[in-house]
Amino acid sequence: MPGSLYIKDIQKNINCSTAALTTTSPTTTELQPLMAQPDLPSDHDNSQENRKEKDPTQPGPTTLQRTRACFLKGVSYFSGDMKVFGKWMEKQFILLQLLDWVLRGAAQVMFVNNPLSGLIIFAGLILQNYWWALNGFVGTLFATISALILQQNRGAIAAGLYGYNGILVGLLMAVFSNKGDWYWWLLLPNIFMSMMCPIVSSALASINSRWDLPVFTLPFNILVCLHMVATGHYNHHFPQVHIQPRSELPNITWAEIDVAKLFMSVPVGIGQVYGCDNPWTGGIFIISLFISSPITCVHAVLGSAVGMVSGLALAAPFGDIYFGLWGYNCVLACIAIGGMFYALTWQVHLLAITCAFFCAYLGSAIANIMSTFGLPACTWPFCLSALTFLLLTTGTNKIFKLPLAKVTYPEKNLCFYWKLKRQEKVEKAEKEQKEREEQQRAAEKELILNEKEQLRLELESIEEGRVARESSEGKNDETHVKDHAPGVEQQGSKEEELTPADYV
Amino acid sequence: MPGSLYIKDIQKNINCSTAALTTTSPTTTELQPLMAQPDLPSDHDNSQENRKEKDPTQPGPTTLQRTRACFLKGVSYFSGDMKVFGKWMEKQFILLQLLDWVLRGAAQVMFVNNPLSGLIIFAGLILQNYWWALNGFVGTLFATISALILQQNRGAIAAGLYGYNGILVGLLMAVFSNKGDWYWWLLLPNIFMSMMCPIVSSALASINSRWDLPVFTLPFNILVCLHMVATGHYNHHFPQVHIQPRSELPNITWAEIDVAKLFMSVPVGIGQVYGCDNPWTGGIFIISLFISSPITCVHAVLGSAVGMVSGLALAAPFGDIYFGLWGYNCVLACIAIGGMFYALTWQVHLLAITCAFFCAYLGSAIANIMSTFGLPACTWPFCLSALTFLLLTTGTNKIFKLPLAKVTYPEKNLCFYWKLKRQEKVEKAEKEQKEREEQQRAAEKELILNEKEQLRLELESIEEGRVARESSEGKNDETHVKDHAPGVEQQGSKEEELTPADYV
Amino acid sequence: MPGSLYIKDIQKNINCSTAALTTTSPTTTELQPLMAQPDLPSDHDNSQENRKEKDPTQPGPTTLQRTRACFLKGVSYFSGDMKVFGKWMEKQFILLQLLDWVLRGAAQVMFVNNPLSGLIIFAGLILQNYWWALNGFVGTLFATISALILQQNRGAIAAGLYGYNGILVGLLMAVFSNKGDWYWWLLLPNIFMSMMCPIVSSALASINSRWDLPVFTLPFNILVCLHMVATGHYNHHFPQVHIQPRSELPNITWAEIDVAKLFMSVPVGIGQVYGCDNPWTGGIFIISLFISSPITCVHAVLGSAVGMVSGLALAAPFGDIYFGLWGYNCVLACIAIGGMFYALTWQVHLLAITCAFFCAYLGSAIANIMSTFGLPACTWPFCLSALTFLLLTTGTNKIFKLPLAKVTYPEKNLCFYWKLKRQEKVEKAEKEQKEREEQQRAAEKELILNEKEQLRLELESIEEGRVARESSEGKNDETHVKDHAPGVEQQGSKEEELTPADYV
Repeated sequence: MPGSLYIKDIQKNINCSTAALTTTSPTTTELQPLMAQPDLPSDHDNSQENRKEKDPTQPGPTTLQRTRACFLKGVSYFSGDMKVFGKWMEKQFILLQLLDWVLRGAAQVMFVNNPLSGLIIFAGLILQNYWWALNGFVGTLFATISALILQQNRGAIAAGLYGYNGILVGLLMAVFSNKGDWYWWLLLPNIFMSMMCPIVSSALASINSRWDLPVFTLPFNILVCLHMVATGHYNHHFPQVHIQPRSELPNITWAEIDVAKLFMSVPVGIGQVYGCDNPWTGGIFIISLFISSPITCVHAVLGSAVGMVSGLALAAPFGDIYFGLWGYNCVLACIAIGGMFYALTWQVHLLAITCAFFCAYLGSAIANIMSTFGLPACTWPFCLSALTFLLLTTGTNKIFKLPLAKVTYPEKNLCFYWKLKRQEKVEKAEKEQKEREEQQRAAEKELILNEKEQLRLELESIEEGRVARESSEGKNDETHVKDHAPGVEQQGSKEEELTPADYV
Repeated sequence: MPGSLYIKDIQKNINCSTAALTTTSPTTTELQPLMAQPDLPSDHDNSQENRKEKDPTQPGPTTLQRTRACFLKGVSYFSGDMKVFGKWMEKQFILLQLLDWVLRGAAQVMFVNNPLSGLIIFAGLILQNYWWALNGFVGTLFATISALILQQNRGAIAAGLYGYNGILVGLLMAVFSNKGDWYWWLLLPNIFMSMMCPIVSSALASINSRWDLPVFTLPFNILVCLHMVATGHYNHHFPQVHIQPRSELPNITWAEIDVAKLFMSVPVGIGQVYGCDNPWTGGIFIISLFISSPITCVHAVLGSAVGMVSGLALAAPFGDIYFGLWGYNCVLACIAIGGMFYALTWQVHLLAITCAFFCAYLGSAIANIMSTFGLPACTWPFCLSALTFLLLTTGTNKIFKLPLAKVTYPEKNLCFYWKLKRQEKVEKAEKEQKEREEQQRAAEKELILNEKEQLRLELESIEEGRVARESSEGKNDETHVKDHAPGVEQQGSKEEELTPADYV
Repeated sequence: MPGSLYIKDIQKNINCSTAALTTTSPTTTELQPLMAQPDLPSDHDNSQENRKEKDPTQPGPTTLQRTRACFLKGVSYFSGDMKVFGKWMEKQFILLQLLDWVLRGAAQVMFVNNPLSGLIIFAGLILQNYWWALNGFVGTLFATISALILQQNRGAIAAGLYGYNGILVGLLMAVFSNKGDWYWWLLLPNIFMSMMCPIVSSALASINSRWDLPVFTLPFNILVCLHMVATGHYNHHFPQVHIQPRSELPNITWAEIDVAKLFMSVPVGIGQVYGCDNPWTGGIFIISLFISSPITCVHAVLGSAVGMVSGLALAAPFGDIYFGLWGYNCVLACIAIGGMFYALTWQVHLLAITCAFFCAYLGSAIANIMSTFGLPACTWPFCLSALTFLLLTTGTNKIFKLPLAKVTYPEKNLCFYWKLKRQEKVEKAEKEQKEREEQQRAAEKELILNEKEQLRLELESIEEGRVARESSEGKNDETHVKDHAPGVEQQGSKEEELTPADYV
């Protein structure tokens, strides 16, 4: 869910990285901007890059290196944000483009801008429930169409940033409907709410952009809660499932805990981001995340685990934990903080885990409050906790929040951060160099000034003498003095220079 | 409810429009600023204006035109925002002024800045209930007085912008009181809450102004909800009517629908803006809107109808629909978007209808949430939906949001928008003209430069020749050359100029 | 709770005031900046200062004055914000510093930046309940440590601005726990929530700073409500006390009112800021406030009284009033508006009382809403009402909101305001003086110009005559004219000056 997409840089970067990887002469490597290489998806290449940097005088790449480069180039075609594919898509038929946007929108729920991931996610949804998948697709489609009608930013639409709220609206409206599957009338409010997504997104972006914050899934939260509470459980047309606040102590026997189900709750938690309780669907989602960005994938699993642990700590009913209700918000929060909107360092990694714990706490709180109105927690806990952690300001430069316009995916964000740091170091070194030079120059200048002062004193004494013997002697001394210190006169002693002239 | 009022421009504008309308010579018409005419209330005149613009060489106006002008001038005295009256009021006794402000405040609930409309609205309120009307009057009065004490902007006070929350606070506190009419103690919290209005308004304006948004009826919503929930149903001094959340499926039999009541719900919905369920009162309010601004009136009726349809679509109990509860928020939202804060185009008209539908949905949602606390929905749905739609940013220039300081009433806003567009067109044409001229000039300059270059080459060849024959010839050539190309030497060929001097 | 602390100015200011107070020669007094003196804690000195200003020619101070100065200097060491002590602390061992910060944090709940007050407050807490005091201490400690880890502003940490939310979080979590005292597991969520305080504070400050507003106790409100609603009453690990909404008319018999208890409710209300219902604890808190700032102390008592009166007016159950539940929010609101963030004038004093009434109303409303979720009102009413009143903009300069960075304590704020006003007056006087001078100069210039014009005319007539008689006469006239008006020629009549030269 990055702020905007810069498709125009693709061709150049791809060319650069290709050239840098397949080049035979080390001099060409040096000429190519090294920061273009970080476009590569996995963080393994960076170590390679660093190695390259260390010995730029190496001979042409070996066969192994060539194979590796070819492999990496291949990987770059379907991992990350699939820029080449997106660029190629731009020249295709509009319906095909729309399909690309819808697929990217489906994946953007997990901050992944990758149509392949989107395709896999749709596969997972179909595995879960046909009707839900259909509603999700309709939601994404109409949200994207609405954004086109409202003439929103084309780059953002192409990155799926107007679709991810749509898919969630469509899916969750189907999930929480009390009329069961294949109740076709549901498509009506589904389409209406999906088409409201870009309006609410745009309005929220107007507010959040003041703090350089993304809107996350707030439009989805607002619109689904709106639909659910507007109709409620007691409605003839669109009844919702009955959600009630807890009114008695839950029956928790620690001996009854099922460790297998507890472990299963990690993929289920990831599946619950899309409202799915099937562990296989969750597993498929994990694969789709890994394809685009391993860092995102790791944080997703970590977040789900943190949610599960928090549930146990706060004495939640085991059923809720097994069902993944404690995980999905933490998954999103952990991804968002751990590398997506902050550049990943050890400090940020710890912050992401803290945020996941806070999010789990908040999730329980919001679920309890919302249940009073017969509402589910949706992803409010994720939105609120992630926004809080993104608003944090600290004195350390190890926690670096990326400008929203530069956010892409964790690996690329990291490269951006490293590049920035390297630049800073270079600038600092240059500044120091300059300062040292300046100091030297100042020292030299002082030396000259001292000399000048001495000369002036000498001159004065000579002049004094000269005035005394002027009547008897000629004017050779002055010219002699002038020859003696030509640099001095050029610098500022115009008066002295003029004096001899006056004598003429 | 515009941001501020510019009373000081009135005299000038009125003079201008008067002059423009009653003038006998077409040249005078041309000299008068045409944009002053849009002050006229109905959008019919603009077509006339445009016609005038097309043939400015027409002779003096015919008798028909004169009559028409007189009629329009007459209409301008009591329609729109009644600027002339407002100006005249400024010189009157303070109590009379206060009455003007109170009446304008009463009408500002519907975004109408017109004391006549306010008077008619009070008539409608008296028709509904004496006690409510009295409370509304007290609320408006004390809110205005409080604004004066707190030294708020005098222009805004005079436009009734500090009164409209007061009238709503007064009215609705009386409507929702469980102690019945003529419970005089109610005036105490009424006065306190009314006097808090300007404080809350000012505070909210500090926030909303960052996004150039109005505060709408948010202060009223906050303060009435505050009073109602602070005391609640179970209170000895100020008990509120008992509002409870729906806890069973409402009994809806489509055969029982009463079409007459359904149609009646449109004026009732407009009446419910002031908490009135009498259809005659609603009808009177429609008249008061038409007097000031027909566009506002049309959108009010449209909004109420949209609300009624939404109620049917979401399977609301018929009683609520007949009672106008689905209409009043949509009325306000449709007025606000349809021409008041956006300049009215077809796109904006469609947006206003979308907003009304969204507002109806939101109305149902908020009513259900608020009922948990024993609260009515007030106008929260209108405020939130209108703010959302005003925060919308689009790529099209057909959806033009007026700067808050320029908001007056739909007809005048439209003229402002047209004027702006015309200006833009003129500026664009001028820019194009300038560019064309610049291109021409650049071409000419290049020609001159080429000539100059030729001359310089010529000069060089001559000089080369001169050096050769210098010994045999005098120094006349240089002066000759100098005379030949004076511009060249002034521009930058100092070396050449100096050369002759070195020869000395 | 001021925005930031300026410890670095201390030494200078202290030196200045010391010098000014103990000096024997009036000239030295005049050389010392008078604005340094307002650092003194009580508003009595200002009158003395003013007196001093009035007769700067007085001889050396009498014995009485000396004693008084010594006393005031002594008072300045432990009242106000104890700058000298803070400065001295900077050079101590880190654990001792941490203790200072924790004590200041404990007092900052009441906007007091004073370790002595903090110590007394901890004494009051121990008097109330050992376990609560321990939890409060742990909360403050870990909040401060967390702020250090997150590298927040050192000055703000040293002023206790990261501790006050921690003490409230710790205390109130212990107060509302249903497991009784000495349930050691409670320290776990206590520490987690305390450590979240600086994160939430920093995030909220990012938002509030846009309007130059403090975060007040919002982080505490958010985090305690979060913990309480996340676990709720029906929880195995951390159950909360059962809070339920009112569902029947309370039994209020006015004859049963206990006036002694009603009066006692004033100190109890102050104690309830820290969740304490012991009137002696409340009394100790009053003393701690008086030590640091008498203005704060007066407004605290006033606020508590206003809350009690409001409770009676809104027919609250007597038990709630006796228990101080109507007082504590008003106490904080009255302190915040009455001199802390606004400079204290009569208008501001009235505004503070209005704010206290509004806060009481809001308190009742929020308590009713929160009870639906089983939550207490915490200090939400204070935060919301104080923020509303701080966002207020008025046309009068008698209500002066201090820039957040300049907020210290009421007495010093007042001196800052007076100094600013004096400066303005001086500037205004200077401006007037300048204007008057400019007018005079302009008048003089005009006179000169007139004279010059006359001279020119004269000159012209002479020249005309001269041209006629030039052949017969010499060139003496011109030199005569030049001698006659030398100033004129210097000003701009270069042409005239050149004329004679041309004649040469």
